[in-house]
Amino acid sequence: MKIVIVGGVAGGASAATRSRRLSEEAEIILVERGSYPSFANCGMPYYIGGTIASRDKLLVSPVERLRQRYQLDVRVRESVELIDRAAKQVTIRRLDSGEVYTESYDKLILSPGAAPFRPPIPGADLPRTYTLRTLEDADRLAEVTRDATRAVIIGAGFIGIEMAENLVHRGLETSLVELNQQILPPWDAEMVVPLERLLRERGVKMHLGDQAKEFRATEGGLEVVLASGHTLQADFVVLAIGVRPENTLAVDAGLNVAERGGIQVNCHQQTSDTDIYAVGDAIEVTDVVSGKPVQIPLAGPANRQGRIAADHIFGRESSYRGTQGTAIVGLWDHGAAMTGLSEKACQRLGIAYEKVYLHPADHAGYYPGATPMAMKIVFDPVSGKLLGGQVVGRDGIDKRTDVLAMAIQAGMTVEDLEEVELAYAPQYGSAKDPINMAGFIAAGVVRGDHPVVHASDLIAGKLDDAVLLDVRTPEEFAAGAVALGVNIPLDELRDRMDEIPRDKPVVAYCKVGQRGYMATRILKLAGYDVHNLSGGYITYEQVAAAKPA
Amino acid sequence: MKIVIVGGVAGGASAATRSRRLSEEAEIILVERGSYPSFANCGMPYYIGGTIASRDKLLVSPVERLRQRYQLDVRVRESVELIDRAAKQVTIRRLDSGEVYTESYDKLILSPGAAPFRPPIPGADLPRTYTLRTLEDADRLAEVTRDATRAVIIGAGFIGIEMAENLVHRGLETSLVELNQQILPPWDAEMVVPLERLLRERGVKMHLGDQAKEFRATEGGLEVVLASGHTLQADFVVLAIGVRPENTLAVDAGLNVAERGGIQVNCHQQTSDTDIYAVGDAIEVTDVVSGKPVQIPLAGPANRQGRIAADHIFGRESSYRGTQGTAIVGLWDHGAAMTGLSEKACQRLGIAYEKVYLHPADHAGYYPGATPMAMKIVFDPVSGKLLGGQVVGRDGIDKRTDVLAMAIQAGMTVEDLEEVELAYAPQYGSAKDPINMAGFIAAGVVRGDHPVVHASDLIAGKLDDAVLLDVRTPEEFAAGAVALGVNIPLDELRDRMDEIPRDKPVVAYCKVGQRGYMATRILKLAGYDVHNLSGGYITYEQVAAAKPA
Repeated sequence: MKIVIVGGVAGGASAATRSRRLSEEAEIILVERGSYPSFANCGMPYYIGGTIASRDKLLVSPVERLRQRYQLDVRVRESVELIDRAAKQVTIRRLDSGEVYTESYDKLILSPGAAPFRPPIPGADLPRTYTLRTLEDADRLAEVTRDATRAVIIGAGFIGIEMAENLVHRGLETSLVELNQQILPPWDAEMVVPLERLLRERGVKMHLGDQAKEFRATEGGLEVVLASGHTLQADFVVLAIGVRPENTLAVDAGLNVAERGGIQVNCHQQTSDTDIYAVGDAIEVTDVVSGKPVQIPLAGPANRQGRIAADHIFGRESSYRGTQGTAIVGLWDHGAAMTGLSEKACQRLGIAYEKVYLHPADHAGYYPGATPMAMKIVFDPVSGKLLGGQVVGRDGIDKRTDVLAMAIQAGMTVEDLEEVELAYAPQYGSAKDPINMAGFIAAGVVRGDHPVVHASDLIAGKLDDAVLLDVRTPEEFAAGAVALGVNIPLDELRDRMDEIPRDKPVVAYCKVGQRGYMATRILKLAGYDVHNLSGGYITYEQVAAAKPA
Repeated sequence: MKIVIVGGVAGGASAATRSRRLSEEAEIILVERGSYPSFANCGMPYYIGGTIASRDKLLVSPVERLRQRYQLDVRVRESVELIDRAAKQVTIRRLDSGEVYTESYDKLILSPGAAPFRPPIPGADLPRTYTLRTLEDADRLAEVTRDATRAVIIGAGFIGIEMAENLVHRGLETSLVELNQQILPPWDAEMVVPLERLLRERGVKMHLGDQAKEFRATEGGLEVVLASGHTLQADFVVLAIGVRPENTLAVDAGLNVAERGGIQVNCHQQTSDTDIYAVGDAIEVTDVVSGKPVQIPLAGPANRQGRIAADHIFGRESSYRGTQGTAIVGLWDHGAAMTGLSEKACQRLGIAYEKVYLHPADHAGYYPGATPMAMKIVFDPVSGKLLGGQVVGRDGIDKRTDVLAMAIQAGMTVEDLEEVELAYAPQYGSAKDPINMAGFIAAGVVRGDHPVVHASDLIAGKLDDAVLLDVRTPEEFAAGAVALGVNIPLDELRDRMDEIPRDKPVVAYCKVGQRGYMATRILKLAGYDVHNLSGGYITYEQVAAAKPA
């Protein structure tokens, strides 16, 4: 068995080492265009920022180890240029010498990854505009960062905001330009408002809903002209707009490629040519929740796909279950995590959904150091099946997202979340974990126990006929309220119920939704047409701060 | 509807507030023997130790709020003494006045909890021997701790080791006496070895496999005579041996009570009298994994049971799914967590199992601050169904335990763990999360790809006929090895294979099991009868340090 693997990072490296563990006889050729296979590309922003002090740390599996331990024929700085499917051979170019040769294969695994997108605008190719993909890219950016004072980042996705943190860490005046009205486009806009605030607090100049129209070389730097008319001065620019699947090889070879560019594969990672597999950021995957084809570049799935391709080559029935889009990104001591479908994904796909917001603490409030998180879960309004979750905050966001990811993987409902038994001690959680709380709230909505309305509807004027009932204290009400409305603190509600008109719908709200929930129950049992404002005033503020897309 | 609830902590408080949310009309009487319903009993050790500075923090739901917001008839310092099932009334004693009265009920909910066990030995009732159950107990211990210099803790369960940490934090010379040869009896002995070392490092004098035979009053203190003959001097003693279900009321009323003391209930929390419910630490529950009745006192389940009892009283079909024993305990910046069955529980119940150990880092090794954890999962050797997991370490142990808890809840197999998609960024995890790694290892064992042997078998002499093959570096080998054996570093294995006899079984091992795994694959593909030592030298050392029960 002779296997040629195109691309040595993540999926390619996993396929190679897995193949070796399955066969000592196989000839395994790993062709990597860069100088380093299997390097930690997710660590690059932190290497540039200095948090990862040593470059060697990023070399997870050095070439020597891949060669020695896994007996891989690793060929770095070589590029596969052409696939001859009929002859089952590839044409490879040695990048340093320009020399070209052919190599036959029994099985070919494509793991070419995705390439950073350079916008087709004037100046996008100027020397001081950088993308971040290879370790050499990181070296260049680390170098240029050392002497720079001002940088502009185009794109506020994962790499964009990680670069923002790290350039601020290096002391640079940093501007962040994003076409969308929000950072981190996979998340719903209101959920990332706290991180947008954090970026501003840390000095990042935010240009949301704007885009670069032109880059101009200036003396010793660049000028970035934005669509809004603003002009930003920078020593250099980081282009972090997004990535495109590297599909040239596949397209040229006539393999099936999706409209959005991803190489199409079956559950065993086979392309339309059964002797050619494809894995990682270059492929189209099936979304676990929606069942639709999507393009989601993530490291975990890439590794698993590589393993599955190798398994299948050696006669095993391993199959890929699809991608659910579980992701997390840190931003100083904060972060954002998600799994499954966002609300806007549901809207885009026409999937019926309901949502709830909550703001639990990461651990018991009576133990020091508890911090709040914002959680949003999206679920089927009838069956309660969990469709997705988003968690933003400081501590414990990764844990709750992983638990939600497991729930989605298992096809659980929000009623299941009520019942799950998670680890509790005061340093780690609460007897009623945020996951249980999300279940209580969402399952109560599904059951009709305490109907909710949403800040977006309130802001859109859809609830103008309703009485807004603020059940917080007068002090909280005075400090800022949703709108003119009635303020009856929860503990006075039963005594002052006659102040609330019975002929109008009532929207109760508090700070995070908990007192509003109790008020909703009291009024519902008293016969009112009442809804709770999900997530309370905190969510309302986030929604109000988020601009519509 | 008139509901009387016996006991106002956790399950009782949850039942009361849930009942009110379901009915504004119900008369809800909450009878609490102590002065404080709904206080944070899990926080008491940290209040005594000073980490929780304010006592008020422990009063989660003050009496006033329960009365005002939830319209509960809260009666503190009153004790239900008798149930008259025929008349559907209880006899209540006012503890301060001694006055006795009766109260009728439509539904009675028993949430009496469990009482700390006082050993039947001389001196166990001396004034300076304390148990920790009520807030008054915590007050007394906080008080006595202030002026003390030496303390002895009897029992190294949750409360015992939390008290040890907190007394050390207060500067006390602390001794910990435990009948078992290990701390934290629910865990397998080898898993808690690192925490036993930590306790010793922090100055706690450990007396495992020992027990108090007598307490003697001395001038200003106590003398603790141990079975081993040691005598410990102390200013006071904390009795933390364990708890017994408070079942007197239930027994006197003729309700079904299990042999081990727990009140028996159905899935709606009804006792053998359908008008009497029972919840929390006083009841027997069904183990989710084994299906057997067990006695597991935990806060999360108590809260859920309270909610379910209230639901059922108001005509809802909520039912309890059983307890899976998900638990965690912190110890300084370390901790131990578990879910499902331990190995010894499988042995006790006669359940067939296999196990694997691993020592992954909590997050990507290339990002600063990664710490190792010890993980053990127990699974069905044929189907691969996950039976239980234990995780001990610093960061991220709670997350992995919660993910395993979800997997058990969903009935997942170790093959499912290979495929689950968890949140990865370098600060939070790895592209191949510890959970995926556990799945890879365990599923490979189930499939027969890389059979394992265990340190316990090695120590028991069961593998004496095997060649022990250390595939670490010569430096690692020289620093300490399992036994006399061959040292062939992994990267030299293929070239030096002729040094390994082919007529004997081979046990390969390394530091944590990863290189041993690769060696096992290489040798297996070369036709050897080879096994990997699960968890490698680190697990071996833990197992060797743990004394048999």
